[in-house]
Amino acid sequence: MRFDLMTLFPESCMAVLGESILGRAQERGILEIYCHQIRDYTLNKQKQVDDYPYGGGMGMVMFCQPIADCFKAVCAQVGHRPHLIYMSPQGRVLTQQRARELAQLPELCILCGHYEGVDERVLEELVDEQISIGDYVLTGGELPAMTLVDCVSRMIPGVLADQVCFTEESHFSSLLEYPQYTRPAVWEGREVPEILLSGHHANIAKWRREKSLERTLRLRPDMLEQADLSDQDREYLASLRSSGNTGS
Amino acid sequence: MRFDLMTLFPESCMAVLGESILGRAQERGILEIYCHQIRDYTLNKQKQVDDYPYGGGMGMVMFCQPIADCFKAVCAQVGHRPHLIYMSPQGRVLTQQRARELAQLPELCILCGHYEGVDERVLEELVDEQISIGDYVLTGGELPAMTLVDCVSRMIPGVLADQVCFTEESHFSSLLEYPQYTRPAVWEGREVPEILLSGHHANIAKWRREKSLERTLRLRPDMLEQADLSDQDREYLASLRSSGNTGS
Repeated sequence: MRFDLMTLFPESCMAVLGESILGRAQERGILEIYCHQIRDYTLNKQKQVDDYPYGGGMGMVMFCQPIADCFKAVCAQVGHRPHLIYMSPQGRVLTQQRARELAQLPELCILCGHYEGVDERVLEELVDEQISIGDYVLTGGELPAMTLVDCVSRMIPGVLADQVCFTEESHFSSLLEYPQYTRPAVWEGREVPEILLSGHHANIAKWRREKSLERTLRLRPDMLEQADLSDQDREYLASLRSSGNTGS
Repeated sequence: MRFDLMTLFPESCMAVLGESILGRAQERGILEIYCHQIRDYTLNKQKQVDDYPYGGGMGMVMFCQPIADCFKAVCAQVGHRPHLIYMSPQGRVLTQQRARELAQLPELCILCGHYEGVDERVLEELVDEQISIGDYVLTGGELPAMTLVDCVSRMIPGVLADQVCFTEESHFSSLLEYPQYTRPAVWEGREVPEILLSGHHANIAKWRREKSLERTLRLRPDMLEQADLSDQDREYLASLRSSGNTGS
């Protein structure tokens, strides 16, 4: 899959997206990520990309021309017009489900706003979809864009070491993850739960499922409505509810 | 305010957090941001920081010792024990309200997990609060940690050019923001709304408020329940609802 980010901060975006799991996926040719400097496309002599808002008010607004020309260059490089997303608090809030759908696309272009956002007309003219990563405000669209790239990339076969990884995780099956432990068996007087040392795989699987259910019931009961639950899961949840014990 | 991030990728975090608005706030001494390499604290000869999970399963789990020793070093540098947050899908979902509360603290330390997360005992022993940036899974805690730093920092007086900036924004008053326009007055045949060129401040303020209300009603009606609405706002919303026109 190919990602093109349009941003005023391409270097620091590439520093983050070139590391770790996403970096290795790019080396292996599974992902291609390009960060484009919007400022390179401005026809303004002072290399400005923003201007005062019509009607007054604080802050600066990114104007249309450099963004539109940057997107034209991306389209030419890709060979056709990719799906264009603008990261914005006005957008639909990102979910794991939407990330999974976007991972089916061959390419994705993401526009990162900055300052007080971008001229509304560029959104009307060019943008296919607006996505928000949550109900809070940030100084720019770069962190949301990288968050989207990371979230979508993980869903692409081959990016993670094993597909199993993401099927077991929080939000994939709409349950929070069970607790994880590694060596040593005792740390600061705290012991690893004995069952994990037992080597009994079926019991371990059952314990982990129960811990996921307990934790989800305690911390995010709203998630249980979406969860894929077996009859055994439902019985266990009913027993937790009736005992008033929602786990620790 | 001081932020300490504990991470396996301190350089790329600093690259992002050293730029733009947060970079300038650090230059002006309003913010201090430090990124600590957890790997520097491991006593493991191979400099490893992760190990296989007890009980089997995919992925690796970050073990306790380097994280605990890294946090000790942060406490020593700060001069006392700062509030420690772990970024995790199990955490409470970040809101603007929580960011505003956290901005009251003198310092904040943030632990970024990676791989399959960290040993549960380090969370029990050290972590004060778990925060999630949304209902989706990422490859590590770095993007969520930077998102938290960005969101909290913006609330600190002096970080943005003017306090007014963030009081007018999406999610501050629980309404989505009105559309913004800048020069030219006509772009690709699309005109700036005439009222914004009128110079009539009261009419412009009224138009912007109505656009915020329209947009919130159309895209995020759930946000209206929390919103701080005047009688005039309520009347306008009622008129939109009865006309079936929720704006464009």
